[in-house]
This record gives sequence, C-alpha cells and structure tokens, in this order.
Amino acid sequence: MGILIRNGVLVTAGDTYRADILVEAGHIKAIGANLGDGSETVYDAAGKYIFPGGIDGHVHLAQISSRGTALTDFSTTVAALAGGTTTVIAYATQKESTGILDSLEQFREEQIEGKSAVDVGMHAYLRSPNENSLAEFPALAEAGIPTVKLFMAAKGSAVHCDDRAIFTALRKAKECGMLVMVHAENSDLLSVLQQEFVDSGRTEPLWHGRAHPEVAEEEATVRAILLAKAAAAPLFVVHVSCADAMRRVREGRQSGVRVLAETCPHYLVLDASRLALPDFEGGKYVCSPPLRDAANQEPLWRALQESWIGVVGSDHCAFNFHGVKDLGKGYFPKISNGVPGMQDRLHILYTYGVLAGKLSLNRMVDVWTTTPAKVFGLYPQKGSLAVGADADIVIFDPEYSDIITAASSLEGIDYALYEGFVRKGRAEKVFLRGELVMDQGKFVGHLGQGRFIRRAPFGSAYDAPAL
Amino acid sequence: MGILIRNGVLVTAGDTYRADILVEAGHIKAIGANLGDGSETVYDAAGKYIFPGGIDGHVHLAQISSRGTALTDFSTTVAALAGGTTTVIAYATQKESTGILDSLEQFREEQIEGKSAVDVGMHAYLRSPNENSLAEFPALAEAGIPTVKLFMAAKGSAVHCDDRAIFTALRKAKECGMLVMVHAENSDLLSVLQQEFVDSGRTEPLWHGRAHPEVAEEEATVRAILLAKAAAAPLFVVHVSCADAMRRVREGRQSGVRVLAETCPHYLVLDASRLALPDFEGGKYVCSPPLRDAANQEPLWRALQESWIGVVGSDHCAFNFHGVKDLGKGYFPKISNGVPGMQDRLHILYTYGVLAGKLSLNRMVDVWTTTPAKVFGLYPQKGSLAVGADADIVIFDPEYSDIITAASSLEGIDYALYEGFVRKGRAEKVFLRGELVMDQGKFVGHLGQGRFIRRAPFGSAYDAPAL
Amino acid sequence: MGILIRNGVLVTAGDTYRADILVEAGHIKAIGANLGDGSETVYDAAGKYIFPGGIDGHVHLAQISSRGTALTDFSTTVAALAGGTTTVIAYATQKESTGILDSLEQFREEQIEGKSAVDVGMHAYLRSPNENSLAEFPALAEAGIPTVKLFMAAKGSAVHCDDRAIFTALRKAKECGMLVMVHAENSDLLSVLQQEFVDSGRTEPLWHGRAHPEVAEEEATVRAILLAKAAAAPLFVVHVSCADAMRRVREGRQSGVRVLAETCPHYLVLDASRLALPDFEGGKYVCSPPLRDAANQEPLWRALQESWIGVVGSDHCAFNFHGVKDLGKGYFPKISNGVPGMQDRLHILYTYGVLAGKLSLNRMVDVWTTTPAKVFGLYPQKGSLAVGADADIVIFDPEYSDIITAASSLEGIDYALYEGFVRKGRAEKVFLRGELVMDQGKFVGHLGQGRFIRRAPFGSAYDAPAL
Amino acid sequence: MGILIRNGVLVTAGDTYRADILVEAGHIKAIGANLGDGSETVYDAAGKYIFPGGIDGHVHLAQISSRGTALTDFSTTVAALAGGTTTVIAYATQKESTGILDSLEQFREEQIEGKSAVDVGMHAYLRSPNENSLAEFPALAEAGIPTVKLFMAAKGSAVHCDDRAIFTALRKAKECGMLVMVHAENSDLLSVLQQEFVDSGRTEPLWHGRAHPEVAEEEATVRAILLAKAAAAPLFVVHVSCADAMRRVREGRQSGVRVLAETCPHYLVLDASRLALPDFEGGKYVCSPPLRDAANQEPLWRALQESWIGVVGSDHCAFNFHGVKDLGKGYFPKISNGVPGMQDRLHILYTYGVLAGKLSLNRMVDVWTTTPAKVFGLYPQKGSLAVGADADIVIFDPEYSDIITAASSLEGIDYALYEGFVRKGRAEKVFLRGELVMDQGKFVGHLGQGRFIRRAPFGSAYDAPAL
Repeated sequence: MGILIRNGVLVTAGDTYRADILVEAGHIKAIGANLGDGSETVYDAAGKYIFPGGIDGHVHLAQISSRGTALTDFSTTVAALAGGTTTVIAYATQKESTGILDSLEQFREEQIEGKSAVDVGMHAYLRSPNENSLAEFPALAEAGIPTVKLFMAAKGSAVHCDDRAIFTALRKAKECGMLVMVHAENSDLLSVLQQEFVDSGRTEPLWHGRAHPEVAEEEATVRAILLAKAAAAPLFVVHVSCADAMRRVREGRQSGVRVLAETCPHYLVLDASRLALPDFEGGKYVCSPPLRDAANQEPLWRALQESWIGVVGSDHCAFNFHGVKDLGKGYFPKISNGVPGMQDRLHILYTYGVLAGKLSLNRMVDVWTTTPAKVFGLYPQKGSLAVGADADIVIFDPEYSDIITAASSLEGIDYALYEGFVRKGRAEKVFLRGELVMDQGKFVGHLGQGRFIRRAPFGSAYDAPAL
Repeated sequence: MGILIRNGVLVTAGDTYRADILVEAGHIKAIGANLGDGSETVYDAAGKYIFPGGIDGHVHLAQISSRGTALTDFSTTVAALAGGTTTVIAYATQKESTGILDSLEQFREEQIEGKSAVDVGMHAYLRSPNENSLAEFPALAEAGIPTVKLFMAAKGSAVHCDDRAIFTALRKAKECGMLVMVHAENSDLLSVLQQEFVDSGRTEPLWHGRAHPEVAEEEATVRAILLAKAAAAPLFVVHVSCADAMRRVREGRQSGVRVLAETCPHYLVLDASRLALPDFEGGKYVCSPPLRDAANQEPLWRALQESWIGVVGSDHCAFNFHGVKDLGKGYFPKISNGVPGMQDRLHILYTYGVLAGKLSLNRMVDVWTTTPAKVFGLYPQKGSLAVGADADIVIFDPEYSDIITAASSLEGIDYALYEGFVRKGRAEKVFLRGELVMDQGKFVGHLGQGRFIRRAPFGSAYDAPAL
Repeated sequence: MGILIRNGVLVTAGDTYRADILVEAGHIKAIGANLGDGSETVYDAAGKYIFPGGIDGHVHLAQISSRGTALTDFSTTVAALAGGTTTVIAYATQKESTGILDSLEQFREEQIEGKSAVDVGMHAYLRSPNENSLAEFPALAEAGIPTVKLFMAAKGSAVHCDDRAIFTALRKAKECGMLVMVHAENSDLLSVLQQEFVDSGRTEPLWHGRAHPEVAEEEATVRAILLAKAAAAPLFVVHVSCADAMRRVREGRQSGVRVLAETCPHYLVLDASRLALPDFEGGKYVCSPPLRDAANQEPLWRALQESWIGVVGSDHCAFNFHGVKDLGKGYFPKISNGVPGMQDRLHILYTYGVLAGKLSLNRMVDVWTTTPAKVFGLYPQKGSLAVGADADIVIFDPEYSDIITAASSLEGIDYALYEGFVRKGRAEKVFLRGELVMDQGKFVGHLGQGRFIRRAPFGSAYDAPAL
Repeated sequence: MGILIRNGVLVTAGDTYRADILVEAGHIKAIGANLGDGSETVYDAAGKYIFPGGIDGHVHLAQISSRGTALTDFSTTVAALAGGTTTVIAYATQKESTGILDSLEQFREEQIEGKSAVDVGMHAYLRSPNENSLAEFPALAEAGIPTVKLFMAAKGSAVHCDDRAIFTALRKAKECGMLVMVHAENSDLLSVLQQEFVDSGRTEPLWHGRAHPEVAEEEATVRAILLAKAAAAPLFVVHVSCADAMRRVREGRQSGVRVLAETCPHYLVLDASRLALPDFEGGKYVCSPPLRDAANQEPLWRALQESWIGVVGSDHCAFNFHGVKDLGKGYFPKISNGVPGMQDRLHILYTYGVLAGKLSLNRMVDVWTTTPAKVFGLYPQKGSLAVGADADIVIFDPEYSDIITAASSLEGIDYALYEGFVRKGRAEKVFLRGELVMDQGKFVGHLGQGRFIRRAPFGSAYDAPAL
C-alpha cells in the first residue's frame, strides 16, 4: 500500500548513507535496509541521491507589486516542484485597515487553497506596525504564522518601518517566539540617489543598481542587528546580496546577537553587469537589493559553507518581461522589481556550488531545506528525512544535464533568469506527502494538492543563548 | 613694548623644549634663546610648562534648552580662561523661519560681541536641513563658520535630522569644505525606552541613563559613518561616550572613512553610578549621552593616546541645580540636559591623564587644542606655539595642587561637576592675544575682550585621501 | 534475533524525532515506526533520548609520560563506556629508531587488542618528523591512521616539532588526506618562565599554570594556522583552552584557512583557582594547557554552540594522585601532566551545557561524536544514527541525577576530576556494535570486545574549499 | 656670525608656518619674524619649505653581507645628504667572540669616525643573545646605543634569534629602556621553500621573492608582537613590506601591545614584477622581505598617513650590480640581498606620497624624521625644528623637477633603484649642525664632518601605557 524507495543515497544536513525509505500514509515510516513487505510501490533509486523536499522560505505570489503590476499566482508553484521544492513560504501583505490575521486568512482562502501545487506557509508582511498590529503577534504565532517581515526601505509607503517599528516588533516578537525578518536597505539613501539619477536623465536599468548601493544594505543590516541587540531578540535578514552586509551579519553573531540570514541564488551566480545589457534586457534583472559586482560571489558562497549565512531562498517574484517589466523602459523607477527563481534554486546550488567545490552536499541540503525548516518552524515535519516526517522526498539524478531556457520554464513568465546556464542534475521524481507529483520534469499531480502549513513559534533562531 | 616669557618648557602637540617666547602686537614674534631687547615685560616661567591656549570646540552658552530653560551666557567664559582655554566654539542654533547665517549673525551680535572673555567661534546648529539650508553652506564657509552640527536624536523636534538630511548635508558640505558634526543617538530607541520608563513610574535620574543605552549611541555612530562612506565626505562625531561607539569610529577609519571624533572629560572620569545618587543629586549629572559604566573609561583614554579619538571638548552646558535642574525632580524627561565643564577640561586631562600615565603631555596638548584647531579651521592662527600665531599662551604650574569645589567655580552655577576631585597643576597665567587676562586664578582682563573668530574651511578632516 | 529499541527520541547532530531502532548483526538495520517482527530483544526507551555512541578523539592510555610515569591502560576504557563513549582515539607515540607504522602496529598488538572495552582508533604521535617519517604518511593513511599529532612545546625533547617539521608535515599530509593535529604552546616562552619560577622557589602547582600563559597558546595557535595557510592544508588544533586562542581559530577560518579545533570539558567548567588549592590538591588539576581564568568559559561554550570550535575531546590522561602526581610535590616540573575525563565528557556537556542553555541538544551530539567522526574519518561507520552504521547506541535517561565522586569512578585512579559536581542524566544503556555492554552503570561486556578501527583519510576538514 | 634662513615655510610633524630661523654655534637659536642683527649669513628661502634634517633609522654600511660581499662604506653618506638626510643610524654587527659594546666601539672607530658626511648612530645587531649579551644591555643604553636588532630568519646562522632570545631580550630591554627591533620572517618557511625551488631548478631572482612569501612575514610579525605582549615590552618591527603584516601591527597596537613599525620607500612604489625582469635585471631588486604585489602599496601609504606605521627608513644596503649582485646569476641564494635607497627616501615620499595626495606634508616630515628621532632617542636634539636643537636643516625647493638616474646617484654603486622615476622637489640646501654641507645637489662639506651621536633610552615606544 505504501511506497518504497530503494537503494538511494540519503543526504540530509547531517548525514549521508545508503538506505531504503518506506512511506506510508504520507509520512516516512521507516528508513533501513531491505524494508517493505512486498505490497509497496517500489522506486529504485540506485545511483541517485535522496533529498528531503526543498523549502523555499521566500516567495512572492499572487500579490500586487508596489508598481501596481500583478505577480504570478500559486498555480505556478509547479515550477517549484520541478526544482524539488515541496514547500514555499509566501509573503502575504497586510491589507489597509485590516488586521494582520484577517488579511492573511483572506489571502489563504482566496489565493492558496485549491490552487497550489506545493505546501504553503505564510509570512506576514506588515504595514508599519503599531500597537494594534503588535497585539496580534500572539494570535499570529497561534495561527501558525510565527514570522513577520518588516521593510526598512520605501519611507513614505505603507509598508515602511522605522526603527521604532522594528525595535518594538522585535521586543514583542520574542515574547511569543515570533521571528522578525527585515528587508535591509537604507530608505533615505535610496531615495536621494534615485531622485538624483532621474533628475539627470540616468533612467536605464543600470541606474536602478546604482541607486541601491552596497553601503545602503550594509547600513540597514548593521542597524537592524543593533536594534536586535537592544531588544535581545532574534533577527532574520533576508536576501543578503553583498559581502559587506554578510560581514555585518557575521560580526553581529560574533558579538552575541542572534542574527540569521538568507541569500539568494541570483546573488551567487549573476552580477551587476546584467543590468547594463542593451535593449532594456537589463530590465529582466532588476530586483532589490540589486545584482552586485561579481567580487561579492565568492564571499557569499563561503558564508554558506561556513554557516555565516544559513538559508538560501529564491525571493521569487516573477513578472512578464513584455507588458510588465517593460513598462519601466526609459524610467527605471517604474520597473516592476523582482526576478523569478523558484524553479532553479536547487540547480544553481548543485551545479555552481556543489560541483564547483564551494558547498558540500550536506551543506547544500542544509541551506536549501533543513535550516529553513528549523528557522521557520516547519521542523521536524519538513526539512529532513526523519521517521514521522512528511514524506516530501526528492529522487535526484546527478547524471542529468541540460541547459536552462525559457522554453522549459514553468514559472509562468516569458523569460528565464538563468537562460543558457548549464544545469547538472535534476529532481527526477518528487513526492509531496507521499504522492508522486513530479516525474522526469512532468507534473503528475494536481493544483490544489498543496496545503497551508501551520508553523511553530520559537524556531531555531532561539537556540543560541541570549547574551 | 612686547612681552617676554622666559625659561619655560614649551609643549606643543609635536615638540617639547626649553625656550623663551617673545610676543608683540598680540602675536608670537619669536621663540628662541635669550630673546628680547630689554624693553619687554618679562615673565619668568622657570619650572613651568608653556602651552598654547586651549580650544574648547564644544560649548553651549546663551541658548534656551529643549526643556525651555536658559543656559549661562558668555560672561561665564571667564571659567574657560581659568582652565587655560582661550577660545571656545559655541553652538548657535538656527532660528525658526530664519536663515542659518542670519540666525548666527544675530547670535553673534547679541550674545558674543562685548560679552566674552575668550575668543569665540560658532558652529551652526541646524534645524533639519532642507534645500534652502544646504544652499547656505558656501556662504557659511565664506563667513568663517565651516562646521554644522546635526542632531540624530529627538525625532519630532525641529533639530532632528533623518538620514536624508545627514546624507545630503554631507554631500553638500564636502563641496565647500564644511565639516558635518553629529550627535549620534538613535532617536526611536531613546523615545521607546523613555516612554516605557515613564509609564512604569521609573522617573529618577537613573532612568535617564537607562533610556540612553550604549547601543543607541553605537548604532547612530556606525550609521553616520556609513552615510559618510556613501557620501565620500568627512564626518565628526561629537561626545563619544562609550567603548562600543569608539570602536565604531576606529573601524570606520580603518575601512577608509574620514571620520574624526571627540570625547569629553566627564566620560573619562565620571560614571553612571553618579546618576543613582540619592536626593536627586543624580540630576546634576544628567547629560546626553549619559555617563556610562566605568569600564568604558580605560578604552576612551587609550583611544585618545592612540589617536583613535582626536579631540576633547567639554560639551559645557551649565544649569543651576536649584531652580533649573531640579525642575525635573520626579520626572527625568524634564531635567535640563547638560553638565558644566568649561573650567576643568585641562585639569582633568592633566591630573587623571598625564599624571596617571594614560596620556603623554604632547598628546594632551594635541587633543586639548591642536587637533581642535586643525579640524575646526583655526590653525595656524591658534592651537600651537608657532611664530605668527595669536599669542594665546598658558603658563602652567605643574606644582600647584588643590581640590575642585563649587566655591571656586567661575562657571556661574551652584555646583561643580568635579566637586572634591584633586586638581594638580594650574593655568597660572593666561594670555589672550598677548594680553595677560588670568593671573593666579584671578580674572585680570575684561568681558568683551574676546572676539568672534572666522574659521577656515577644508580643515584637517580633509587630510586623509578619500577612498 | 536482533534488538529493537522502541519509543525513544533519537537525537543526532541534525535531527530530533521519535522512532524505533532495529539492530541486526551489529549494525543499524532500520529506523522507523513499529519495526520488528517480534523476534527481537526489545528495549523500551520511552522518555529517553537515543544518542549515537560517543567518540572521544583525544585519550592517552598505556603510555609512559614525559615524567617517566605510567598512564592507565586500555582496561580502563570501561569508564568511557559509562559515559556513553563507544570509541576512543588514542595517541600512540612513535618509538625511538622505529618507523611510525611499526610503532603503532606494535602498540595496537600489545596494548589494544584483547584489552579494550571500546572500539579504538590511533593517532600517530610523531617524533619530530623528518623525511623518513613524512614518507610514511601514505602508508599511515592506508593503514587507517590518517591523523598525526605534532607537539609544538618541549623543545629539546624528541617529540618537539619546529616550524619546518609542521610546515613540511602539513604539505605532505594534504597529498594523502592526512590531518595534522597540533598541541599549540610556544615552547621557549614556557621554558623561560618555568626556569624563572623554579629558580625563585615558586614551585607549587599554581606556578605550573603561570608558566603556561594564555599568550603562549595564542601565539602557537596563530603560528600553526599561518603555517597551514602557507601550506594550503587543513589543520586541527587540539585542546583550545582559552578565549584568545579560540578567537585565533575563528579569525583563521574567516581568513580562509581550513582550521578546526577541539576543546575539553575541564576548560569549560574548571578554572585556574583549582591549581591554588592547599595541600598539593592543586596537583590533581595540573595539565597542559593549564586550567584558565573562569572568564574564558563562556566564550568557549559560545564557540561550541556557534561552530567556531567543533569537537569536545577529553584529553584523558590519568595518573594516581598518591604515588604519581604527588611525586611533583614541591617541584611542579615533576608533576605528571594530565587529568582524567574519559568518563564524564557527556555528563559535563549535558548538565553544564544543555541544561544550562549554552548548548542545544543537537549541537551537543555534534561536538561529542558526529563532528569527531567526520573529522577523524570514522563517519558514516560511527558518529550518527544512520542505517548501515555500527550499532553504537546510547539510551540516555535525562531524569537521572547524582553526584560525581571518586568512589563511582571507573577511570582506575584514586580521585575524580569533577568530584562533587552534580551530574544530571546518564547513559543508562550502552550498545557497542549491537551488544549491550553497559547497563545502569554496570559493565556487562568484556574487556577485549573493543576493536581497532581503521579510519578513512580526507575527513571533513577537507570539505571547505582551499583558498 | 650665525646664519639666518629667511622667509621659508617651516614644516614640522605638527606645525606649518612662515618664519625665519636663526642659527648660532650649530644650534637653532631662534625662530621668529625679522630675526638677526645683520651679522648673519642670510639665506632667502621664499617659496621654499624648511624641514628638519632627515633621520634614516635603517642603513647598512661598511658591513660584510651574509653572502660574503662588501657593502659600501660611510663615505657614501653624501648620498643621504643629497636627499636631505643629516643623520643615519647604522646597523653594527656584534663580532664573533666579542662583546656587543666592544664590537660597536671598534666599528665606530674604524668605520665611522673621520669618514661620514652625516651624523651617525648605531643599532646593535646582535648575535643570538645569551646571558652575556643581555647583561650588556644597561651598558649599551649608557653608551648611547639603546636599540638592538634581532633577526628572526636565517636559523643556523649566528645572527638568528629564536623565541627565547627574543623574549628574554624584550624583558631585559625594558628594564633599561632599550628598544628591541626585529626582522620578522619565519626562518623555517623560507628555508623549506628556498630548498625546494633550488632543487627544482627555479633559481632566477623571481624565486627569491616566492621563497619569502607574505605569510612568512605575517607570521613572524604576529609572533614577535605576542612575545612583546608576553614580556609587556615595546617592540619595533623593521621594514614592514605587505598589508597583512601591517594589519598585524595595527591589531597588536589595538590589543594594547606597544608595537611600532617601519616601512621603506621601495615597498611603497616598487613591486614584485621587478624581480621578473629579464637578463638578471631582477637581481637589482632582490632584498628581504622582497618586493610585493602592487596591491600592498595603497594599504602601506594609508598606514603611514593614519599612523599605523610611524617610520620610513631606507634599509639602504647597496651592492654593485656588476661584480657583486651578479654573483648570484643563475642561483638566487647567492644574490647579495639588499637595495640602495639612502638618497631618495625624501624624493619618493614627497613625489609619490605628498603630491599624490596620500600623505600630508606634516605627516611626511613625521615619518621621515620626527618619529624616528623620538622612537630612537634622538629627540629633541634632532628630528624637529625646535629652539636648542641641532641646526640640521633642509631648504626644500618644491619647484625642482628631474629624473632619477644612476648617473646622478651618489650612493657609490652602478645602478639606481628608482632609475627613471620622476623626482619633484629637492633638498636645495642642507645644513648639518649649522654648516652648509650640500648646495644645489653638490657636496660642499667634507667627509668626517659627521659625528657619532649618543642616543637616549626610553624612547617614545614607552609613551603608551603598558597594559
């Protein structure tokens, strides 16, 4: 009745060994030698790796961007599956004049239920928190949403958070085990530079990058860390894009602050030269923080291997090039900010990290799913190959090789971020809670199979003792 | 006709040697052996040190405090003279609906001219700068006021500066050689903590200190430094009070930012335990940043000796205890913030620095007058013992010893900050532009002898190459 | 026929979950729910933790000390079992005029085979390596001894290694996947100080500590790291005892050197004040590096939690107090150096680390057995709970509590290092390759059950990319 | 009778101002306006800078090199004068079986007296110190030789010092105010690499550089600093050549060690590519430490401006190319190590530092003469423009410009280290103790005019408090 995956090499954050996996009723029932009683559907995984399903802790779906354009919806999570990701955590923005929890419940009902190909958690993307929103934190934790995202840029907008908002959120969060996540860029620096470039007619995509200098990210990163120090609370810094910001995270941790961080695949393999591509091609690569000089890539890889950065999320935020991105042609402030990435997170890490000798295989699994699970409160249900856990399983074929193209993209837009990149290895078969849902790159499940997942508070950011 | 000071040991930032000094027409005419033609008034300084007159780059006089109380006026600069200080640079606040230069000219006319015992420069204390105020920077530089002070705390008040204000001021300043000075404390942190303490009835002076934690200063310091990095402009951080902020200055400089800093005598010898003195005695010691734990003192002394901090200013801001400070009894937010210090800057540095082996004598002169002169554009007119310079000269008797008391204070208020401290050495005679104005602790000049001094732009903060 | 451990909570370096473990033929056959066919011997572990058997990568047994005294032999490894340790790696010293491999083979035959209660690996403790010894490195790796220990102190003795010896060993080692381990203390500093203390009659145990200052360890640590940088080779620093040395390891790693380190339980909970105990009690605590000021303990705990240090070994080196240690009474250079610790490594980590909130439970397992297994080439045979691995398993009762005393020590000497310490939790049952060998603190196996274990080269120190 | 230098701009480490200088009896008698009584020889210095005569704290003259070749003798100090240097401190090596003081006295008599064009101090270059040599330290200090040089490289040679030698020397030195100077390179690293290169036929000058890697200097530098920390003694590191070593000095100082350092002009403007010049041209540039990659130059300039390094010495050590240097053709270990530089120290600092905006003019004077004077015990007799000081004075013409060539070299060898470099500015007139000895690049003094100068112990390295 169950399924049995035989002869694969299991790879977790901590271990690598050959064993069979027996799945029953959607969970891992046993791991061992010669398992099963013959009643199972058997998959032979000889020569393959077995990974726990991936967790992408940073996706944007079914939102309206700050430029008023629409992102792709949850039906595109098939792309995540194609890359071995079985769970995404999506940002859900608090609505105007609406409570956080009410906003998120509505989002869940309208956008997630019945539509997703993968399991889904939600991060609450707050409007600048006030007393009312802080008062909702315990209820959020209770509702399985123990993470809130605060946005340090965009002063003047509803989602901007000043230091008071961040500090009070940090203090409230630690009472109930919530984790505060920040987008760290100095708002004033960005707006002064943007205005200056626009005023002087420097409006190509290249100038989007220049208007978001590394120092703006470094500053906001160290500020958030010192606010966390003041609050004696954990902190999570999303999408660290450059070496200077990474070093601030490392320095913070060494000084005793419980700060964790994420980087994204595009900061590891793409660089700022993309923004200067002619014919507005650069617009495809506009995101915030922007792509950086290539010299930042090696320090970021090293930070992953050495655990100075613990999580790789995609920051997937997909817009069509034609008709959406190109609305900003000739005027970069109108370019919808964001790049896709949900599909290729694993491919980039494996091909350009593991095979390049920059990341051990265990460490790849760790940053790709295990640490996300632990930090975001999904563990031990997800994120590892442990008895009792959801049978989210990837059979990974290391021998596969092809080229990434828009044609093979399932992300629902008209271009591929990594167009032309070699991809080595593939999630040959993907199981979601014991169901085979992706096979040889073909979706064999159904939309709506993904469930909303309640997550637990007091994730692993609370492991280290507070000073 | 001139005066001749014989046999003293001249001490400058760089040199120590025995020589005579010949003064004519208010300037140093010559330094040498056996000078003079017999026509001079001769002072024998055998056994004495000769220092250049002190420069106190940080005094508050003739202002109305943010609590609405009045500070002492320029007639009290006699106290500065008593401590060997012959020049002060006073903060002059821009008035509402008035240009900076107009505000300062008015201040000069009304408060300085005819009233001061010492020479006076002005720092422009800006309201949060906008395009109009930035546009005045070249005129300020032209008018001999090449320094502007920006206040990072007190969000909501007219003088608060957000990051845009600081960044744009930094960029404008470097065009005309101005120097931006910041009071670095994180405003939001302070206001959240203050509100919390007040709401919970913790209203003694002690809680003023707790509402200004070290991390609030550290954060604002590193933020200002990174804004200076972004602007590629020099920066001056006033009143660094704790080791963590000092280390941020040091780190900034090592990373290539042209950041200079000041500390104050009270941070070197007084500590936070003073704020907890009973019977509201703690109120006498309320200032911002507040007195810190004593463990910060050794790092600050070392930072002075090692040139990580270059300037000691008094941050003199004197209020009567009875009738002014005590208006805040039972409610610390109403305590007028500030402590005196204009009189004892030299005594603290000499007795607790030089004699304690923490500061060399040359380095004392450097932080007390030479670096202030160079940074603030007074050099070579003042700040050293150089031919052609103003004959601001101190004959210092190292053998003198007494106890600091309120009774001997000339600061014009009813208490002495360093009451009971031993004072070794004394500015036995003080000359202002060649006139003997202080003799054996007695003022022998006249109020009004002090002149407004125009200072030069592009001070020594511009010496190091920009990265 | 096999055994089945049911209902326990499995704890590995990466995972925590409830499951049964099925053991057959000395290996873990399966981990799962409701395992077994009824033929197994069943152990109920409800309310208990299941740990992989511990690995103590640093023990000294059956050696003659540099003072000519004899250490305890392998029969005392029963003590290790009592603390849940199922494998030790013992230092085996190269004999005079004998090859390394010959020396170690002889040691294995004479001292290990037939005598040990636990499995045993060997580290080659080299005489100062020359061309001949370097030439043996490939054979050592081949023989399952991929680790060599070099001793930086004791210049003049046969085991002292100068920088040439270390550098050439590092370069040779990386060719064949060996790992160079160093005892890092500056020999000259130690000998100058020791001579001075002896000459001036300061000969109590206290002066042993003073003759081994922290800076001597710091210096040798950074030197070894820079030699590893020069050689582009991995390095393992044993028994880091103080914060300054730990920070040098951290700094080295951040600069790109592949340096790993070990600390020991006694540096985490005992301090230098022990050396000053009267009546030569201090002699019990004499080891090198010596116990340090207590201020070093928190940084070391933090370093373990944050992975700046990856391994906790006991550095077990046990001498009787009466008759051995006390030969050095009145003359510290004659005190046999070393302390026991094989029995209580787990107890110290659990009681004073995990229960004190300084170490997560997973991290405790990691430093106690998993990282040692990976670094020293025992993984995946040992060090985790993985299918196919040796069934070295500990059932740990977290509810147990008693007091550590010499009376309950199995270490074969007349005192307990942690006499009087509370011990919470206990290795209630310990299985060695599937055999129950320790039950309720009673040895139920037989001496000789322990086997020599061949280890693999290219351990995890090689994981990070070389710069 | 005296001389009067009028209208120049005096530049000292601390001050810049226009004044006349009156010299009598070899000393500066007065500095002032309109000095003199008409009896003086007058030099008009309008449009010129007046510097104190330069002090080159690091020259090798009249020695036999370790390769058995002879260095130039003291008659070549005319070259120093041409570059404005009026005092050199020469290394004098202790002779075999001879006391230090006896060796140096003999050197003084035979090599210095009657031969030198500049004043001369001596550093004692020790054979590896033993008890006898340490016992001579007080006598050395007494004899005006308060500095000893210890050589960390060249194990096996008579001058090699192991850590015991350095540590005991440091401890002895601080008792009598001596300063220990170290040549910091790891001997074992150098010899292993050299042997390897030689064995494999890599014997061109290029491989001399590769056999002295930066890490060898970094290691020895941090080791010496930690030995100084252990000894609580000051330390001087000569010829810091690379950024990594400089950062170790900076780090040491920040940790409280009283460590000072020197760099040399060739490390500031020449790089390792010179060693690869064809036709053995690279041999001209062979010195130790070797020239480094150009990326090290900016950090070294910055370190000078920011006072992380305080002294620029030439490390002048001149050999003819033809007949001496080229003895090592085809076998780099035989190349006589050392480069000239005594003549162009000022030119390099002024043209490539001051005019390039990397060094302020005051700071140039400081590193060129004032800090050397203070550190090495020559102050206030030399190193500044102070009344009473020796009238060692340079009139510097900033308008002069030419090209450095071997033809114009006075260094007594057949090539110029900076051949082809533009030189801006020139020491137009140089006075040694009041005598005009160099005029328009022509030597107008006489050999033998230079005197041996006794220096004082407890130089400025003792200024900072010991921790």
